Amino acid sequence: MRSGTNPTVNDVATAAGVSTATVSRCINSPEVVQPDTLRRVRAAIDTLGYAPNFGARALAAKRTNTVGAIVPTLENAIFARGLEAVQRELAAAGSTMLVSSSSYDPEQEAEQIRTLVARGADALLLIGFERSAEIYDFLDRRKIPHVVAWAFAPDQPRPAVGFDNRAAMRALAEKTLAFGHRRIGLVTAQREGNDRAQNRWLGLLDAMRAAGLGEDDLSLQETVYDIESGRAAAHALLTRDPRPTVIMCGNDVLAAGAMIAARELGLSVPEDVSITGFDDIEIARVLTPQLTTVHVPHREMGRRAARMLIDMRDDATAADSVELGTEVILRGTLGPAPVTP
Amino acid sequence: MRSGTNPTVNDVATAAGVSTATVSRCINSPEVVQPDTLRRVRAAIDTLGYAPNFGARALAAKRTNTVGAIVPTLENAIFARGLEAVQRELAAAGSTMLVSSSSYDPEQEAEQIRTLVARGADALLLIGFERSAEIYDFLDRRKIPHVVAWAFAPDQPRPAVGFDNRAAMRALAEKTLAFGHRRIGLVTAQREGNDRAQNRWLGLLDAMRAAGLGEDDLSLQETVYDIESGRAAAHALLTRDPRPTVIMCGNDVLAAGAMIAARELGLSVPEDVSITGFDDIEIARVLTPQLTTVHVPHREMGRRAARMLIDMRDDATAADSVELGTEVILRGTLGPAPVTP
Repeated sequence: MRSGTNPTVNDVATAAGVSTATVSRCINSPEVVQPDTLRRVRAAIDTLGYAPNFGARALAAKRTNTVGAIVPTLENAIFARGLEAVQRELAAAGSTMLVSSSSYDPEQEAEQIRTLVARGADALLLIGFERSAEIYDFLDRRKIPHVVAWAFAPDQPRPAVGFDNRAAMRALAEKTLAFGHRRIGLVTAQREGNDRAQNRWLGLLDAMRAAGLGEDDLSLQETVYDIESGRAAAHALLTRDPRPTVIMCGNDVLAAGAMIAARELGLSVPEDVSITGFDDIEIARVLTPQLTTVHVPHREMGRRAARMLIDMRDDATAADSVELGTEVILRGTLGPAPVTP
Repeated sequence: MRSGTNPTVNDVATAAGVSTATVSRCINSPEVVQPDTLRRVRAAIDTLGYAPNFGARALAAKRTNTVGAIVPTLENAIFARGLEAVQRELAAAGSTMLVSSSSYDPEQEAEQIRTLVARGADALLLIGFERSAEIYDFLDRRKIPHVVAWAFAPDQPRPAVGFDNRAAMRALAEKTLAFGHRRIGLVTAQREGNDRAQNRWLGLLDAMRAAGLGEDDLSLQETVYDIESGRAAAHALLTRDPRPTVIMCGNDVLAAGAMIAARELGLSVPEDVSITGFDDIEIARVLTPQLTTVHVPHREMGRRAARMLIDMRDDATAADSVELGTEVILRGTLGPAPVTP
């Protein structure tokens, strides 16, 4: 922390005419303090430029009222809506959420977990289960409550709030196959290190196998989660011969890119090619035609994850995992497979 | 911070067979440490479950290599792309970015500034100039380097990386007026406490006055920044009599909502009504027709802000503000004003 004048908690207590215990409560559990007292103490804190340091915090309270969240990216809306819900729920409980983005890099995620713990995070929200045993050991050794979101697997010991990515993608793929599609294109995020992407791919294969198809009937492109990459990956699939009759995308952002690729190639959706997404974020409804996708309850997931983190932190008890349902949303981009020339 | 075993920096140094100074370097300036040494020390840190606490950090280094960023919302892509650029630039410099969202609430922003300083942020990225004198005094007293982004004003003493929101909106409005539009609708964020929204509104009025129009020729709706709110606000404007011939929106997200409202009302864009946005985020290119908007160099703004924060932190010198240019992007949603029946 940078140097500067360093008023103490005693200075604040004196200035506000309260006890140091009250100052600590204002800092650590503002929700339990009388509004006028809180105002007076905050005014004193501002006037004196007091910032409680870790030492003082350690004495003042076991809790820092700071919860960390590490997401793979901030760049698109996939995690943003859920995070906003986490943040509102935590704010209502008097806690602040600090977010960092790992850019889908396990090394960076490990670094950020260490940093958030060093910065005193009470608890951590993590995306997906897949990370090194070292990091999980680190969290267990430090007794840092953590919840995994965006993924759910009954066999996983870690508390999670999520949904069955594999079953959700299988359900969407079954609808797609019911429309007669047999040549399937998949635009997915890199599956290595991303259990959500892996399970969506496996769910698609489940449905294809059940319909008597095999991996040969699937053309696949791995890319990163942004519209431009989705456009390029879909373009590569749509210029193959024979052309897939449907491009299924790992999320709505990639699907928006696939829509651009189809338009650029003069293909109309869904007459010439069908396109599907995953997540049902707002972009799905602004596309023309609107996007067939899987609705993921992002806000509910965020709220539940926040509640779980607060309970684990306050009661130091392990929470039960929560599996949320998803729903296939049929809109205009999925239609019957065109008859092969 | 939660209790748990508390190994010391000496334990780590012993386990890694290095000096405590080297351990500190690995924590505070990993970029200057030999990779194999860094690996060895990190392994020891993980094995022992060591997390440097603030006291130790204060002794080990003036810097925590943590930079805080507080944005009004995480929910849409307006800030996400710029933040991702900040994060990559900081990561390259061995620093971690911690983000929090104020939900456009000045009280929450003040709380989060206090929290990030308490968590040891070396420097802060803030959005826009408008916040209480108390908070600025707090930052000055604590000597916390901070940069304002997304806004630029020559008369502002605070270091900023941004663009002239007023001039940018004026330039877009001049193009709109050149297409013959005289009945203007504006869907904007709440202007109070949001200098970006205020200046975009003022820029529109500048252009209207220069064209001999007045505030009476402007119908205005204030709302929050999401597609659904944009849809509702645009619907209210488009059902007025006489109907505005153009709906100018405070950003691309609101414009995407306005496109939905026009479609729902059976109005074709731009034949019946023109629509414009602001930001040129990816959603602008997935709309049909594509969106006329103002291109804001979000990535460049993020990179420059990050560099400025790093320099201010490391050299403790005040940085010069940077004004970036914006560009009007004419696409399909802006056309000639329909002839009034």
